[in-house]
Formats: sequence, structure tokens, C-alpha cells
Amino acid sequence: MLTLYYAPRTCALASLIALEESGTPFQVEKVDFSTSAQRSPAYLKINPKGRVPALATGRGIITETPAILAYIAHIGSQRRLAPIEDAFAFAEMQAFNAYLASTVHVAHAHMRRGQRWSDDAAAIETMKAKVPENMTECFRLIEEGMLQGPWVMGERYSVADPYLFTFAGWLKGDGVEPSLFPRIAEHRERMLGRPAVERAMALEGA
Amino acid sequence: MLTLYYAPRTCALASLIALEESGTPFQVEKVDFSTSAQRSPAYLKINPKGRVPALATGRGIITETPAILAYIAHIGSQRRLAPIEDAFAFAEMQAFNAYLASTVHVAHAHMRRGQRWSDDAAAIETMKAKVPENMTECFRLIEEGMLQGPWVMGERYSVADPYLFTFAGWLKGDGVEPSLFPRIAEHRERMLGRPAVERAMALEGA
Repeated sequence: MLTLYYAPRTCALASLIALEESGTPFQVEKVDFSTSAQRSPAYLKINPKGRVPALATGRGIITETPAILAYIAHIGSQRRLAPIEDAFAFAEMQAFNAYLASTVHVAHAHMRRGQRWSDDAAAIETMKAKVPENMTECFRLIEEGMLQGPWVMGERYSVADPYLFTFAGWLKGDGVEPSLFPRIAEHRERMLGRPAVERAMALEGA
Repeated sequence: MLTLYYAPRTCALASLIALEESGTPFQVEKVDFSTSAQRSPAYLKINPKGRVPALATGRGIITETPAILAYIAHIGSQRRLAPIEDAFAFAEMQAFNAYLASTVHVAHAHMRRGQRWSDDAAAIETMKAKVPENMTECFRLIEEGMLQGPWVMGERYSVADPYLFTFAGWLKGDGVEPSLFPRIAEHRERMLGRPAVERAMALEGA
């Protein structure tokens, strides 16, 4: 059975929702960030990068959210969580997920993880100060173009939806008013109405 | 025909090599960073994010290197540039590419693009100072585990190879001695022996 290594209030929520949507049996293993369990020797054997999520499969570990999401869509293909039969549409979905991973998540990470990129406390404060501006710019691009609506990729729900949902939930904490982005806010409401999202959020908080 | 929008000495090199490997007809369009053409209204219509690479196809634009690489592998599938028939192996390759995009490229970007994350000149200097340490840590993980050898994914060459090749070429400029990573250096030599790499580098410099 698949095992998702996750921590609450991280981007692992996207993979947790995707698994719930996929109908694939899975279990979860919480990595306790309060004791830095993600840096423990036991966890570094699972993911030498010391991050979540990681998905243990019968053949080995998969890391990195965009890779995990596409994998879940492949193995649960009867639920049609990605347009895997259409190279262009699949690439569009992957581009969306890659943008979230490489730009949006990175913009956000400068709020609480600035020590990754500077050893200087004052410098880290200047990074924090810029997070609202950067997150606003990212979400404006999503609001005004990338989010096709009603779902990220248009009429068809995909694994890009839980990923957007996850980051949209971080806006307030990043000092950005979510109502600035009405289409993304509507998307969030639509997501909250899905049973799989409800189950994933209950599991995450458990 | 496909059109790759690129700029020299950027991560677009990976897509250029992948296109050369794929046997798919394509043309290139240089985006002149010296005149900030990536922020011009004309280019922002192609890629509102103002970045390269972007790949124009008959159905629309694809952005983000990991998405472009997987797309090239799909359309040039007779060249077997990705294990697209095997969901787990494909996910492993995607995880590698996602790590390069979200962690390695981001670590590197703090050398010359620090203004993305801070408005403070002194803070940006502290980011630059940490780049060699971060790039070393990333490349150690690749050297000691992720690079299966002889190619990134083992015996089979894939689109992950030009992507690693691209970043390995940036080590010196990031203040890291490439010979610290003998397996990656060997991989780089092996890549330089491929005609597609030679063609792509000639095209990039043209």
C-alpha cells in the first residue's frame, strides 16, 4: 500500500487530497516538524532532502509534489485526475504545478524559511517584508489567466486543483487579503465542498 | 512547427538539447535579456511570467522546464527520452527535474536574482554569499544518490540529463569547484560527446 509522509500545514496537503480523490488505498505517516523529525536519520533514509511530502510505493520513494501528483493521477487513472492521454493538456497542467512549486512555494518560503538563503537575521527580515508583494504578483497571474475555471484546467478537475487550494490557504498568513482574488476564492469554496477535501483536511488535523 | 523561446546562458539550454535529441522539427527565437525583451509587451503575451523558456506549439504555449521536457519526451516518444510507459519510473524522473527546478535553480538564482526576494542591497549580498554552500549541498545529494549513472535515470538517457548538464555548467560561476563531484563531472563529459548537445550549444551561442 502507498504511504504518504506528511506534516500538517505543509504542501503535503495537495498530495493528501489527490490520494483521497484517486480512490487508491493509502496510509499516512506524520513527520513531526516540532521535533525536527524531517532531519532525523530514519526520515533522511526515506527522503535525503529532509522534506515532505514523500510517497512510499512498492517500487521506491517518490518526492516533489508535482511528481507525486502526476503519479497519483497515473495510478488512479480511472478517476481522470489528469489529462494523461493528451500530451499538450498534460503539459499545461504540469506547467501550472511547476509554477506553484518553483515560484509560488519559493515566494512563500521566504516568509518562514529565509535562513535557507541567508545567514543574516536582518536580511531575512527584508525577505519577509517582500513576501506579500511577491505572493500578490503570483496570485494575480493565476487569477487573471492561469486559472481557467471552474477548475484550474477548465471543466475537468485535476490534481492541479488541490495544489492551488493548498497555496491559496496560505495567503492570509503571507499578509495577502484573499478577497483580492475572487476567482481563486470561489475555487477555494468549490474545493471545500468536495468530500475528498473534507476527508484530507480531517486526516491532516488528526 | 514548434518554436522555443530561449536566451543564452539560461536553463532554456535543457529544452534546446531535448529538442535536438527528440528529432522533432523546431525553430528558436532568441529573447534578448540585454534589452529586457522578456518583459516586453510582445513577449509577455507569449509568457506572462516574463521568463524563458517557453515552447509555442500548434495548440498553445507551454512554460516551465519540467513541463516542457516531459512534453518533448511525449511527442518524440520514438526516441525514448522518458520512461513514459512506466508511471513509477516517469515519476522518479519528474522528481529529479522538479528538484532541479524548485531547489537547485532557486539556490542558484540567489546569486544574480536576489532582488526577486529582497529590496535591500546588503541583504542581497548576504544571499550571494550563501550560494556556494547551497549549491554544494544540492550537488552532493545528486552526486551521492540521485544520479544513478551513467545517465541520471540509470542505463537509459532521458530529458533529465540535459537538465542536470545545464546546472552543472553553472557551478563555477556559483563559486563551487566542479571537480568536487566526480560522477557529475563524468556525466558532463559524457553529455559533451553527444551530437545533439554540440548542436544545441552551437545554436545557443549563435
